[in-house]
Amino acid sequence: MAGGAADERGVASRVFAIADAFEGGDGLTLSEVARRARLPLSTTHRLLAEWVEWGGLVRGEDGRYRVGIKLWKLGVRQPTARRLREVALPYLEDLLEATGEHVHLAVRDGLGAVYLERLSGPGAVPVISDVGSVLPLHATGVGLVLLAYSPPETLEAVLAAKPRKFLPNTLTGERELRERLASIRAVGLSVSVEEMTRGAFSVAAPIRDAGGDVIAAVSIIARAERRAEPQFALGVRMAARGISGAFGTASR
Amino acid sequence: MAGGAADERGVASRVFAIADAFEGGDGLTLSEVARRARLPLSTTHRLLAEWVEWGGLVRGEDGRYRVGIKLWKLGVRQPTARRLREVALPYLEDLLEATGEHVHLAVRDGLGAVYLERLSGPGAVPVISDVGSVLPLHATGVGLVLLAYSPPETLEAVLAAKPRKFLPNTLTGERELRERLASIRAVGLSVSVEEMTRGAFSVAAPIRDAGGDVIAAVSIIARAERRAEPQFALGVRMAARGISGAFGTASR
Repeated sequence: MAGGAADERGVASRVFAIADAFEGGDGLTLSEVARRARLPLSTTHRLLAEWVEWGGLVRGEDGRYRVGIKLWKLGVRQPTARRLREVALPYLEDLLEATGEHVHLAVRDGLGAVYLERLSGPGAVPVISDVGSVLPLHATGVGLVLLAYSPPETLEAVLAAKPRKFLPNTLTGERELRERLASIRAVGLSVSVEEMTRGAFSVAAPIRDAGGDVIAAVSIIARAERRAEPQFALGVRMAARGISGAFGTASR
Repeated sequence: MAGGAADERGVASRVFAIADAFEGGDGLTLSEVARRARLPLSTTHRLLAEWVEWGGLVRGEDGRYRVGIKLWKLGVRQPTARRLREVALPYLEDLLEATGEHVHLAVRDGLGAVYLERLSGPGAVPVISDVGSVLPLHATGVGLVLLAYSPPETLEAVLAAKPRKFLPNTLTGERELRERLASIRAVGLSVSVEEMTRGAFSVAAPIRDAGGDVIAAVSIIARAERRAEPQFALGVRMAARGISGAFGTASR
């Protein structure tokens, strides 16, 4: 049965490769899925049919494949995302109301900051983050906060992966990153100006669980010319504290 | 290769059976997954290892398996859930603020109403719905609205599945269900009292896409003694209209 188990591993990894094809987009044709999953068209076609039969993917009238409600239902069972979103939402709404800018809630997943929630005022600066999207740790406010409280190996891995310089202000060198992370830990807040998005500044703070471990980060992204206004740092700090307290209580 | 493709089908369906085990809960032991997936322990153990390696499931320090951030990221790509939640959230918040009760947003998935969002006031009546949970069409406000605008086969399937009588007021007979659905279509609103939850009443209305098709439903669940207050019907109707308009615009 060793051969059977080996076949099983291969099929399972191909089943998952199909799902991975949908990470960066949605509404894919058969050949787009095959190319992204690096699988032959015939295999892709068969496995997509399995996914559609199960309900994890659906095939639209336009022939394109999209993520189905079944995967959505399964995904929202993720316990951290679920509880964090639930306890954080009132605080994020307060921040939105007070500033009219973007409010972000993110957790670390490997070397990325995953956006669990984003609320945006109608006149907020255009940014590329969106719920479910993943942005690099070194170039975003929430990412730097999450990195500041991660095990040292995470920074090593970020540096080894050659962090990209999105804008002149993006921190990419080891020394400047170490200094920034130390400063974030010292003041419990990250302030960045035009490190990821031109014309935008960001204030981010850590969210802790009942044991004091940093499990998430909350931030505001606003127009750079507003960076001297005092309510951003205050608001983000208060929201982080409030969410931490609420999360700790909810987990008990 | 006919045998190979058949094996592939079998493995894929076992991979999906593992995921299905997490539908009703989270934080499962190996043997709980095996029992729910109806697979031998050894197969379950191997396939869980594949899921964990991929990142769709994680194994906690307590040895239990939970849905991972990877599945959450994939699930939030679901286009209808994503866009509906985004455009609906401000309306749902207004309803919450005006009533202090539960506000629900749901879509139909087969014979169930899937809750895309739930906001609740601190003093709201206890209900069993939660984001991602699935409740029967015949016994919930949103479910009856979704059923009223579904193809006739859906009602046939609901009746064939012998709808459960949760409370004395739950509609389970063909004639009473047909009458209620006709009345919902006539007035564009569903009002139920203690059909699913004791002490609760619900007002629900349909959300339409730009083409006029009903794609979702919004509802308020409130304490039954408040059922004469006029703002529930008005608020739900207005929210449904506003979300329909916003969704239509966002889809263009």
